Amino acid sequence: MQYIKPLAKLIERLRALPGIGPKTAARLAYHILDMDSSQAKALSEAIMAAKEQIGFCNTCFNLSDTNPCSICSSSQRDHGVICVVEQPRDVAAFERMRDYNGVYHVLHGVLSPLDGIGPEDIHIKELLLRLQQESVRELIMAMNPTIEGEATALYIAKLVKPAGIKVTRIAHGLPVGGDLEYADEVTLAKALENRREI
Amino acid sequence: MQYIKPLAKLIERLRALPGIGPKTAARLAYHILDMDSSQAKALSEAIMAAKEQIGFCNTCFNLSDTNPCSICSSSQRDHGVICVVEQPRDVAAFERMRDYNGVYHVLHGVLSPLDGIGPEDIHIKELLLRLQQESVRELIMAMNPTIEGEATALYIAKLVKPAGIKVTRIAHGLPVGGDLEYADEVTLAKALENRREI
Repeated sequence: MQYIKPLAKLIERLRALPGIGPKTAARLAYHILDMDSSQAKALSEAIMAAKEQIGFCNTCFNLSDTNPCSICSSSQRDHGVICVVEQPRDVAAFERMRDYNGVYHVLHGVLSPLDGIGPEDIHIKELLLRLQQESVRELIMAMNPTIEGEATALYIAKLVKPAGIKVTRIAHGLPVGGDLEYADEVTLAKALENRREI
Repeated sequence: MQYIKPLAKLIERLRALPGIGPKTAARLAYHILDMDSSQAKALSEAIMAAKEQIGFCNTCFNLSDTNPCSICSSSQRDHGVICVVEQPRDVAAFERMRDYNGVYHVLHGVLSPLDGIGPEDIHIKELLLRLQQESVRELIMAMNPTIEGEATALYIAKLVKPAGIKVTRIAHGLPVGGDLEYADEVTLAKALENRREI
């Protein structure tokens, strides 16, 4: 018996987290044992509080502790522009940038026939409903530049365009500060294809 | 406001763990939100259970949920040999090996005058007391091969040797499977110094 039981249990639970192997789990567990009781309690309670208090906004399906969420209920935001993303963490990435003032719609996935994920498995229906109820000028497709992401963007664009709503896709190209030499071929091809006159 | 409050709090608490930066903390937090409630609860409770149930063995000062610990109270172990280590995780490393059948003594640190850590700050007094009360044949110094570890080993050896107890130090040399070409000079010097006839 290498670890005493409560320690073994904690290590096992920590290992279930992504990117945490057995050695890291053990290191984290020993650190938790070294913590003040109040700190360990705060960590334990933060996990439960997050699970209990956070649900989804019924409008945009972002994570939220209110319904509608603070972005959907804000009069400061432009409700005529909806940025469509795959996951809640993508909203966090946009908010970190501070440059975007529209609202969001979180699909919670992308179309992926190979994995059996069709249009009814992600929040596309709810997006179409929003477009009927609100007056939306532009839909920004901000899915990841993967095959599934592109296919999902095209699928939604096809459904929405007849209604006269402008549909755009975020640009793909060389990351700022990136090195041309190390760019993969697909990114470089996109960068060339989307070149602009200066 | 990039994250909603309960999520921001969870990320902040996870960031307090060693080796967890802001991006990893966010990834872990999103994963916890994606978990089943029962799993998240189990993680939360494992933290509290470990904190509440685990204390120190009053004999060897290893982490334990019993007192004395299972190693100190085992009749299967050789109580005549004590392996002196710096931290509880070092005991776990020895137990993983399965080759050692003696008992342990955890110092909870090493002598480090620069950091203001003297003999009275680590469990040296308790070790000397054990040597008086139990009949110990050998003391294995298994501190890390650092300057402080060596100094601590020598300090204890000096105190103990007059009592006629054998004091040994674990060997330092090339790690098994290691490559001579990449060994640092100090390790190589130790390996040469401790060479044996074959």
